[in-house]
Parts: sequence; C-alpha cells; structure tokens
Amino acid sequence: MRKRKLEGKELIIAIAQDAKTNQVLMVAFQDETAFKRTQQTGQMYLYSTSKRKLWRKGEVSGNVMTVKEIRVDCDGDALLYFVDCKGGACHEGYDSCFYKTLDGKTVGEKLFDPKDVY
Amino acid sequence: MRKRKLEGKELIIAIAQDAKTNQVLMVAFQDETAFKRTQQTGQMYLYSTSKRKLWRKGEVSGNVMTVKEIRVDCDGDALLYFVDCKGGACHEGYDSCFYKTLDGKTVGEKLFDPKDVY
Repeated sequence: MRKRKLEGKELIIAIAQDAKTNQVLMVAFQDETAFKRTQQTGQMYLYSTSKRKLWRKGEVSGNVMTVKEIRVDCDGDALLYFVDCKGGACHEGYDSCFYKTLDGKTVGEKLFDPKDVY
Repeated sequence: MRKRKLEGKELIIAIAQDAKTNQVLMVAFQDETAFKRTQQTGQMYLYSTSKRKLWRKGEVSGNVMTVKEIRVDCDGDALLYFVDCKGGACHEGYDSCFYKTLDGKTVGEKLFDPKDVY
C-alpha cells in the first residue's frame, strides 16, 4: 500500500461500504497497525486522527463492522471494505456517516440515539 | 467543509459512486477550487496531488463524471458524489479504480485500453 502523508502521519484511506446494499457507510484512515489488525480479526480497525490512536470501529457503541471483502485501488493508497455493519455506522446515530445533503438536509435513517450509547 | 492537511495542502476527500448501481468508482481529493468548480459545472473536478493542480476528471480520456447528488459526512471532511460516469472511471481502463482484490486478483471490468486513450 502507498501511504499518504496525512496530518503528520503515514495513512491509507479506508472506505466502508455495506456488502449487501453497496451503501457507502463511512470513510476513515488506517495506519499499518489498523490495517493488519483488520486482516487478522476480520473486524474493522481504524486510526483515529482526532484521538491519535488505534480505534476498533464500534468499540463503544457495539456497532462493529465485520469485513466480507477488500478491494484496493489502482494507485494503492485506498482500500474499499465491503462490510456487514451491526447497527448504525455513524456516531450521530445514522445508518451512514453520509446522512446529509450538502445544504444540510437529513436524508439518512436514524437507527439509535447517541445519548443512549455514548 | 473541514479540510484535512494532506501532503502539505488543505484538502477534502471526494468519493465517487455510480448513481445507478452504487458501485464505488474512485476516491480522490478536492481543494476549494475543485469543490466550487464541481458545484458550478455539475462535472467532477478534483485536485491532483501528483500533478499538484486542478484536474477535470476525464479531461484526457473523455470519461467525465456528471454529478447527480452530493452528500457530506458527519464530521464534514468528506463528500460522497453520486455520478454518471461516461466510460471507465479508472485510468487503467477499468469500470472502477477498485478493480483488484488485496492479493492482486482483477475483479473489475475492463472497458478500454489505456494505450488507445493516453
């Protein structure tokens, strides 16, 4: 994989897409550890650029992502993960992190209340 | 939008997804100019981190992307573009840039020969 210099760290882009519906659920980043841990466990691990540490997707909410298939892009700096996501992918309670239009209209489906979870 | 410090420049992540099939076609980056130009024209503009300049997707190949819908993610650093892509999205001739599995097996559909185009 060809890592990108992102906010001071060498990272790759990780897109999570619903394995059944093809809905794009989120985009985040992986360092080498997150990438390897995902391979080893079949669960989605990411690198949190805000907390600057390894982050198991769903470690607090329980909304883990089980990886079904992985694709790599032509220039090797991004991975596309086909996943089965337990519950909403977004920490704001929605099915996908891409739940808003550009003008702020909510179009996603709310699956949980963040106040009940975090 | 919340830009990310990426390879020395303030950029956002732009994912292109087929508006009809939901297939993820590519992931790239946009600076402010590319973002605005896309809005103004309805065609996908990107920022090329290799050439360090504005890049109209398909400017050489003719495989332009017409934007049908735009979604923004929860933390505002990524856009999901639903597009109609004329021809293959990938400069290597495939329908999607994510045409390989992690172990290098080609699973995408070849739509053109790059030698005929570039």
